[in-house]
Amino acid sequence: MNPIPTPPTLSVPRPPALPPLDRRLEPALRAAIDRKTKPLGALGRLEALALHIGLLQGSTAPRIEAPQLVVFAGDHGAARDGISAYPQDVTWQMVENFLAGGAAINVFARQAGWTLTVVDAGVAHEFGPRPGLLDRKIGPGTASFLRGPAMSAAERDRALDAGMTLATGLPGNVIALGEMGIGNTAASSLLMHTLTGEPLAQCVGPGTGLDPAGVERKTGLLARALAANGGREAVAGDPLEALRRYGGFEIAMMTGAAWGAAATRRLLVVDGFIATAAVLVAARAAPAVLDCCVFAHCSGEPGHARLLEAMDAHPLFDLGLRLGEGTGAALALPFLQAACGFLNEMATFEGAGVSESL
Amino acid sequence: MNPIPTPPTLSVPRPPALPPLDRRLEPALRAAIDRKTKPLGALGRLEALALHIGLLQGSTAPRIEAPQLVVFAGDHGAARDGISAYPQDVTWQMVENFLAGGAAINVFARQAGWTLTVVDAGVAHEFGPRPGLLDRKIGPGTASFLRGPAMSAAERDRALDAGMTLATGLPGNVIALGEMGIGNTAASSLLMHTLTGEPLAQCVGPGTGLDPAGVERKTGLLARALAANGGREAVAGDPLEALRRYGGFEIAMMTGAAWGAAATRRLLVVDGFIATAAVLVAARAAPAVLDCCVFAHCSGEPGHARLLEAMDAHPLFDLGLRLGEGTGAALALPFLQAACGFLNEMATFEGAGVSESL
Repeated sequence: MNPIPTPPTLSVPRPPALPPLDRRLEPALRAAIDRKTKPLGALGRLEALALHIGLLQGSTAPRIEAPQLVVFAGDHGAARDGISAYPQDVTWQMVENFLAGGAAINVFARQAGWTLTVVDAGVAHEFGPRPGLLDRKIGPGTASFLRGPAMSAAERDRALDAGMTLATGLPGNVIALGEMGIGNTAASSLLMHTLTGEPLAQCVGPGTGLDPAGVERKTGLLARALAANGGREAVAGDPLEALRRYGGFEIAMMTGAAWGAAATRRLLVVDGFIATAAVLVAARAAPAVLDCCVFAHCSGEPGHARLLEAMDAHPLFDLGLRLGEGTGAALALPFLQAACGFLNEMATFEGAGVSESL
Repeated sequence: MNPIPTPPTLSVPRPPALPPLDRRLEPALRAAIDRKTKPLGALGRLEALALHIGLLQGSTAPRIEAPQLVVFAGDHGAARDGISAYPQDVTWQMVENFLAGGAAINVFARQAGWTLTVVDAGVAHEFGPRPGLLDRKIGPGTASFLRGPAMSAAERDRALDAGMTLATGLPGNVIALGEMGIGNTAASSLLMHTLTGEPLAQCVGPGTGLDPAGVERKTGLLARALAANGGREAVAGDPLEALRRYGGFEIAMMTGAAWGAAATRRLLVVDGFIATAAVLVAARAAPAVLDCCVFAHCSGEPGHARLLEAMDAHPLFDLGLRLGEGTGAALALPFLQAACGFLNEMATFEGAGVSESL
């Protein structure tokens, strides 16, 4: 009687052990970059990217191979409480749009050469077996964080595990994470607030298009969500607990996928506010995740610039995009290809017979 | 005797008469953009680009067709007076590199799908007939602006004419202008100073890589060039006279090409500091040139940001590139394709059965 209770065993792999980035090739890579027929440093950020990708791949001839863009879709209980400008049904309707090839991410992925995978991480809709849709449904949407934790520890861990397994099993050496989920800008604002300590109002924005009064109302709702979940203190130093209380199934799966990408030394191309929040969780649990990240862009969602700053991340461009789906990440691929391209294909000063600086 | 002298006839077409951009399609284009399955405005700058290209092409289904990137090469007499970190020979050596396919612009043009044309606008080198090189040589480099005007009016006009004729004869509906010419950052600084009134020191930078002492020496040399050419007053209100005194054959040819692009309603993708200076001259003579321009990027040459600001131009990205050759313009093509792509290929709310905002 009264046996000592066995601690619950976790089925999920916790953040993988990530070795630090091996920088031994750095001198060779820098020398290769500097021998190309251009003034020193004249390719700016592309030179830093070439170095980064080279170190990650452990090669002075890095290549972008079979790039994979995965869009995770999930619903948020809080969407039924009016935190978004759109009804919750838009999540499954947009999944249908992805499957039919009619969304922005379909267009941009086709154009740039990404292979697109759509994942049902937990949409509140029964799709049935569908070609092109991976069923990794954790449940029909999360519970509302306005009344308590969005998910159980078991749900969170299954989502992390599914994301990690998926990412490690994909071909190629580059992964971008996209998402669809009405309400997930709000969830990301709560993750940003609890994990970075930025004031809540600085973390909240219009999402899909709330007007200023809507943003104010949303901020009030998110303050209620914090109160219902014990506030920042309850998750202090525990990013996975913050994820459980405020995240979504698609966000947790992206966090797991970020771990999977890092564990297999792939380049992880990070999209907008929600994808960055998922990577924030991943990196707080396993900081070396950031060694594999390229932050594609700064989005039009106001909190994104501050979140990037808090992570010391420097995005490649800012076109005021605020769509999610991985659209900004998709558009960054040509820059990555240009970085590898100049390193692999440009002539050297010696080879081309070009004089060097005086 | 003493007949009334005939005014000299100009062989060059002066800036073409450019009709203002026809904006009648704007409501139809905005409506088409807003019906796409995305929150209003969520594609940011890409939406403005789609509108712009649609108006320019007079179509609600604009397309990027057979994009042409033309690199103009020319030498500057002042390069022999030490205004660059590189010897003048690098101009012809880099032309050889372009012809052999080993320069950064070759790599980026191939990758993005530009057809690349290399033009000898006035290199101080005899190439002889060469496959892939268009001979439009005005002369073996300009005279040094340190001792007087860089070129004669006849030379300038031949260069303008050659650029305009070349641009109007190219296939496709998009042109990007690139350049190579040791000393042409200095020439562009002088054009910027004389045409915008920005203080000289704000217009001068390291170019291919001068150190701070080198930049200071260069600024002193450029002050001498101004003194040798009558200063700003001598060219006040006359952009083509500024071009004659300080420009280069490749810069004048780019100015003519910008006119040609605008006259044929092509999209003109503007690269870095030197290309922007050429467009500045073109636009001061014919302001409607700007209706066809997309400014690709803000370069690492310090004067470029100010020059763009003076032209109220908003570049698409800033990767700290400072190479010229058209490299920044080449990298912008995927953004233009994405702008046309979403407009042509995305589903509408009605078509996809997606609910609109509440």
